[in-house]
Amino acid sequence: MIIEKPVRIIALGKYLPEKVDSSTIEEKFCIPNGWSEQNSGVLSRHQVTFESSSYMGARAVEIALRKAQMHINEIDMIISAAATFDHIIPNQASMIKSELTDCLDSSTATLDMNTTCLSFVSAFEMASRLLDGRQYRNIVIVSSEISSKGLNPDNWETLTLFGDGAVAAILQYDENSGSGFIKGGQRTYSEGVDYTMIKGGGAKFYLKDYPYDQQMHSFQMNGIKLLKMARIRIPEFVDWFFNDLQGDITDTDVIIPHQASKTGLMLFRHMFNLKEGQMKENIKMHGNCIAASIPMVLHDEIESGGVKRGDICMLIGTSAGFSVGGVLFKY
Amino acid sequence: MIIEKPVRIIALGKYLPEKVDSSTIEEKFCIPNGWSEQNSGVLSRHQVTFESSSYMGARAVEIALRKAQMHINEIDMIISAAATFDHIIPNQASMIKSELTDCLDSSTATLDMNTTCLSFVSAFEMASRLLDGRQYRNIVIVSSEISSKGLNPDNWETLTLFGDGAVAAILQYDENSGSGFIKGGQRTYSEGVDYTMIKGGGAKFYLKDYPYDQQMHSFQMNGIKLLKMARIRIPEFVDWFFNDLQGDITDTDVIIPHQASKTGLMLFRHMFNLKEGQMKENIKMHGNCIAASIPMVLHDEIESGGVKRGDICMLIGTSAGFSVGGVLFKY
Repeated sequence: MIIEKPVRIIALGKYLPEKVDSSTIEEKFCIPNGWSEQNSGVLSRHQVTFESSSYMGARAVEIALRKAQMHINEIDMIISAAATFDHIIPNQASMIKSELTDCLDSSTATLDMNTTCLSFVSAFEMASRLLDGRQYRNIVIVSSEISSKGLNPDNWETLTLFGDGAVAAILQYDENSGSGFIKGGQRTYSEGVDYTMIKGGGAKFYLKDYPYDQQMHSFQMNGIKLLKMARIRIPEFVDWFFNDLQGDITDTDVIIPHQASKTGLMLFRHMFNLKEGQMKENIKMHGNCIAASIPMVLHDEIESGGVKRGDICMLIGTSAGFSVGGVLFKY
Repeated sequence: MIIEKPVRIIALGKYLPEKVDSSTIEEKFCIPNGWSEQNSGVLSRHQVTFESSSYMGARAVEIALRKAQMHINEIDMIISAAATFDHIIPNQASMIKSELTDCLDSSTATLDMNTTCLSFVSAFEMASRLLDGRQYRNIVIVSSEISSKGLNPDNWETLTLFGDGAVAAILQYDENSGSGFIKGGQRTYSEGVDYTMIKGGGAKFYLKDYPYDQQMHSFQMNGIKLLKMARIRIPEFVDWFFNDLQGDITDTDVIIPHQASKTGLMLFRHMFNLKEGQMKENIKMHGNCIAASIPMVLHDEIESGGVKRGDICMLIGTSAGFSVGGVLFKY
């Protein structure tokens, strides 16, 4: 498949807060033992104790910089690609930058991109199109998510599903590396706009007039409607995506879907008749970490050799809105 | 100056909620008569009554589409470029899309970009770099902001300064128009990260643990420190921006700075020794509408003939973080 832009992931960094076993959550909230593994497919996830989102994001960025042997002043832009954030103002990328040890040594630009669970995927496409080897030579994308604070203890499905964590990836313009961005894209289907929501906390139900309420300020999803929609829209998206490319999704070496849910992943696997080991997942040990899920799988697979240089990789998923999106690249 | 990408603004749309005179605010909050005009430079602004941010944004998009004689299914992406939003999830662009009359007829992608007050400027650069005449032919950027809900009645400086409103701009890839994107860029200086904040409402001071508090959940700015920083960083940014271009800021036909404050605009005018009429403003009648300010001035100046086809225009401003950013284009 033709490389559109010579962009290479040169390093990734990860930060995980404290590990929390499902048994601990089950005990705390009087959920039957084993319910989480059976229903959500999650054995453990990580949850913040003292960490802010920018703290986790900054640590992930620093690890990636160390691996790449780079300094923050060599990075032209920090993109925060996430659904959650520390403050309403400033934007999260500025907060993450300000948490870096060397933050005062650079004037690196800071930008937030948000397509909820697809934020990393969208940012990967945008960064790839931005990188030009002149004004933009290196961009770091960081997805740092704290989901644990927005969960409703009465909703076991979401309570046992979500996790926290941060991953950063440095993308570099490099004409000689052989790596490259092939394609990115997203489609939004508005009939599903209210299937996934945190209703409160914004201007519509402003918190002065709508004080904290478990329902209004917690994550809500209509799992059945989402799955029904995904079943139609994901194959439709994949057809559209590969329409002008040589080959289709089964020709990719590695597919990393968003770790939406156990059922979602199962659905995805059956949809495309994938080869053994072609699809990667980590939901069992990390849960759904919103936008940090996809890069976390990528990070861990690169570390363990599951993704190798030269592999054609597809990152793909659904997000609130309702959207389907993906990015295809040669690692 | 060399055009980097043949991108043309083909239409803009604006939505304003109810007009509120400064005298009304002064009366309501026992502020001395005339304080607002004298200190903030604001005579009137608009404030939402029934409107949500997505409602205003959708109306602005529909007006722009009507002017361009286009349908939403001809738009490849909706970028919401704003600091404020209706819900925590989904992202605001998906909410805006879902408010369009014809939303179900299209699968237009939806993406949020947030650099607070500079969001429209950042989105203009990103959209320009994204547009390629193939996958991306038309992108609509919409900045819809509700500032009136986050204001502290005890802080007259901000209470009288801010306004609400929405502006949408359709950018089109068109090799034959003569219009074009010249350059965009942003620099972030972390020493000013806490000069402009809405501290609460995110994961750091999660509202379950930190119920509504006027200080914590209102907009706060350290005006004196911001002006001091702007005085150094804006000229530094402008030097950097024009460094590899022919000409400098005084060679542009039109400069639209962010309508940050009366003093901020005065500072800007004196910094660059601008020609009469070169710098455009609307703070007197609209206040500071966060990211909607810059496109609102652009919209009104195009309508009134203050910006004409062929003009070299610079959008420039500062934002929370602390950042300075700009975009240069031939209208």
